[in-house]
Amino acid sequence: MKFRPVINVIAALVVIIGLAILFSTGVSWYMGDSNKQVMGLFLSAMISIGFGISTFLLSRVNRYTLGIREGFGIVTLGWITASAFGAIPYIIVSDFFWYDAFFETMSGFSTTGSSVMDNQLLLMSGETLKTGIRDMSKGILFWRSLTHWFGGMGIVVLSLAILPFLGISGQKLYNAEVPGPTSDQLTPRIANSAKILWGVYFLLTIIQVLFLWFGGMPMFDSWCHSFATLATGGFSTQQASIGHYGSAYFDTVITVFMFLAGCNFILHYRALQGKPLFYFKDEEFRFYLGVVLISTATITLNLILSGKNILDSAGNEIVPTFFNALQYASFQVVSIITTTGFATADWDLWPAYSAILLVSLMFIGGCGGSTGGGMKSSRILLLIKYGKFQVERCLYPSVVANVRLNKERIDTSTLYKTLSFFFFFLIIYIICTILLCVVDDIDFRTATTASIAALGNIGPGLGKVGATCSYSWFSPAAKLLLTFEMLLGRLELYTVLVLFLPSFWKK
Amino acid sequence: MKFRPVINVIAALVVIIGLAILFSTGVSWYMGDSNKQVMGLFLSAMISIGFGISTFLLSRVNRYTLGIREGFGIVTLGWITASAFGAIPYIIVSDFFWYDAFFETMSGFSTTGSSVMDNQLLLMSGETLKTGIRDMSKGILFWRSLTHWFGGMGIVVLSLAILPFLGISGQKLYNAEVPGPTSDQLTPRIANSAKILWGVYFLLTIIQVLFLWFGGMPMFDSWCHSFATLATGGFSTQQASIGHYGSAYFDTVITVFMFLAGCNFILHYRALQGKPLFYFKDEEFRFYLGVVLISTATITLNLILSGKNILDSAGNEIVPTFFNALQYASFQVVSIITTTGFATADWDLWPAYSAILLVSLMFIGGCGGSTGGGMKSSRILLLIKYGKFQVERCLYPSVVANVRLNKERIDTSTLYKTLSFFFFFLIIYIICTILLCVVDDIDFRTATTASIAALGNIGPGLGKVGATCSYSWFSPAAKLLLTFEMLLGRLELYTVLVLFLPSFWKK
Repeated sequence: MKFRPVINVIAALVVIIGLAILFSTGVSWYMGDSNKQVMGLFLSAMISIGFGISTFLLSRVNRYTLGIREGFGIVTLGWITASAFGAIPYIIVSDFFWYDAFFETMSGFSTTGSSVMDNQLLLMSGETLKTGIRDMSKGILFWRSLTHWFGGMGIVVLSLAILPFLGISGQKLYNAEVPGPTSDQLTPRIANSAKILWGVYFLLTIIQVLFLWFGGMPMFDSWCHSFATLATGGFSTQQASIGHYGSAYFDTVITVFMFLAGCNFILHYRALQGKPLFYFKDEEFRFYLGVVLISTATITLNLILSGKNILDSAGNEIVPTFFNALQYASFQVVSIITTTGFATADWDLWPAYSAILLVSLMFIGGCGGSTGGGMKSSRILLLIKYGKFQVERCLYPSVVANVRLNKERIDTSTLYKTLSFFFFFLIIYIICTILLCVVDDIDFRTATTASIAALGNIGPGLGKVGATCSYSWFSPAAKLLLTFEMLLGRLELYTVLVLFLPSFWKK
Repeated sequence: MKFRPVINVIAALVVIIGLAILFSTGVSWYMGDSNKQVMGLFLSAMISIGFGISTFLLSRVNRYTLGIREGFGIVTLGWITASAFGAIPYIIVSDFFWYDAFFETMSGFSTTGSSVMDNQLLLMSGETLKTGIRDMSKGILFWRSLTHWFGGMGIVVLSLAILPFLGISGQKLYNAEVPGPTSDQLTPRIANSAKILWGVYFLLTIIQVLFLWFGGMPMFDSWCHSFATLATGGFSTQQASIGHYGSAYFDTVITVFMFLAGCNFILHYRALQGKPLFYFKDEEFRFYLGVVLISTATITLNLILSGKNILDSAGNEIVPTFFNALQYASFQVVSIITTTGFATADWDLWPAYSAILLVSLMFIGGCGGSTGGGMKSSRILLLIKYGKFQVERCLYPSVVANVRLNKERIDTSTLYKTLSFFFFFLIIYIICTILLCVVDDIDFRTATTASIAALGNIGPGLGKVGATCSYSWFSPAAKLLLTFEMLLGRLELYTVLVLFLPSFWKK
């Protein structure tokens, strides 16, 4: 890998992070945070901007020659560096330990949404964060939500333009023929796709803000929750997450926008071009929609038949009438499959079928080309088709693989990469779960779900990391391990794994 | 599929089952069971023999033409039919409901070792099996262990001779070049391999019986436990399993023989031919040995450092000294990775690392060509190698897969079958876990481990199916589902899955 151009690009990224913190400083001042809090944010912004600009100038190159190695380096090292600089506000303004700040920022950029903010978080001063999220300054909460939104932006472009270029996931896998003139050169392609996709992303965000605001949600909360929704992140400005409002209207709006955020953004672009039927022509979308509908229907039924009251995330007991059950079931199903992780109910207490199904949905995740995490619906769909072929091959040994997605034949190279992805995802999941138990002596349910919640970029799990809990109680080592899982999951494994090859670092 | 020859072969199998029950009748009489119990077994034997002989004669064919379809049919339908006829003694002698009898027999033949026999099992008379296993006649307990031994026999030949012939798992995958003259014809190949491999199997069984008997175990128990060990089954004649004896000697002997039963039987044959170094030349064996040693060492350490007493399966508290911890750790590790399922301690109560690691070992399983279940060490090893290649391919897109096992290049067809196997194994595992929660409202830990304990042919899991518990409390539907998982896992998935292809049933 050539270090100089990689450092140069990452330095530019750090400047952007600094500018985003500067914007949050403005919000902090506008929302009436204390002078100390506003100045803390301003200082954080200046550190990033100053460090970024000076490094950028020192590492200037005449001509960019970004090869495949440099591509991997920029994505993975850039993501880590962004999280490091993005963590500074938490340390300066909110007195977080560095590992808590890094955890929260990586959770933000990776659109995971796991948080350490609760009333038991130990601060550097030796005290705890007594009142949890309510204690935080508005500036910090805004920055926290903004990390989601930036992370989501990064992912849309990453998954639709950069990763296919790096050979991580085939274009066809995501139905991701980027619209407009394309090129084999990395830079013009990204610039072109980015403009279009970010336009869609931005538009959807604003529409959601308006919907929430018209419904009576404060403007500040509307923006923060919209950032977290479109990025399928999950950070909330309320300790009880969306359940805080106890509003069927907010639940419905957020369910719809979470669902949209879990779709391939190319499809939204087509719809905006006046071709809404493209949604249903897309096999992955149909699969994703089918899983959502079937899961919602059966969980609704399960909740009604169980006869137990639903405990919402604010602690109220709700009688499961048809509409109540549907409201809570659909919200939780969409929140989990899109890997957002917002909560309106403590589904850890739901009957066995509902809880197990929701945990299983964590592995599927959203569509390719969305901001969702997990393994992605297209991969699961492809593996089911390939599996069927392998069974048929038992009877007809000479038959050749002919697996199609959206009527296009998937080349074998993509198929095998997908199969290996499935293997890696689960092996890394199991190894990280074991390591988590090495560093912290935790129960089976918590360990198995905390690990997938991080790797799948979901947020909450079961047990001690349930929908109404936080990650504050983990040891620093466990927090760093989970942070690493978030990074791995977000960058589709391979992008991080290549950095472990010694040959990657050769010039 | 041509039904006539398939029915003919299965009818012969039913006669063999009948003869084995007849042998158990002799044991029942010799061990002093009541006349009613002996006559019940005799009647069961006569039903199988009579039905088998008459069907055999009625379905006689002049010339066997066994193609690939008939091969699958014989293996899968034969296994189910054997379990159905093998269940008769439980119904006639012990008053079991048909689903309990079928569960116990499939658990036997599939060498799973999950049992419904405890003091809460409801019998057809409306009463419960008050004293659990102690209530059972010796004849039934002997037959129960014998189903393991027969199942193990079937598996050794199946995995080393029949499945490679059916294209399910490549020869090279198992280092399974069957010794002696081979042939492309199914029948002579099986006959030839069977003689050699059953010789090894029989010899090891007798050696273990002698070791146990010399150590003071009653002759009857020695035979039953040796049957269950060599088959990596797990049925015990004691409610507290091997922990009943509280003997370091028995634990050590059984640990060693479980380990041997989890090895490729071809390697034992080579060793008996005077080539013991073949063990260490085999990559799969080294991997298997490595996993066992590392797991045992770290769990021993974990038990000692945790400072908690070990609760043995008979209910005694054991102080974890170095030797005690090593004894219990090694026994549990080998029992789980070989998928035997014998217990000397309630490891559900062990610290998080030990419990999670043991659950993870359930997925690995023994070596190919052994009687062990799970995914098999060779498959995991191959997938790790293939995964490493896929990461390298990110940097060198034009590199060609060159995955070797025992220095021999594995053809791509075997690689992809292995990748698909991994996918199927986990998807079936997840679907069955969800279905298990649909039929019975059980907790997360019990559901997730009961399902893998059945699919991996292990036996016990965690929670309500822990090492000291039984499966008696499940609903009939859940028992049938678990039975189906045992069958799927035992026959390497594909063998059962092809029967779901409509084209399989065409003539």
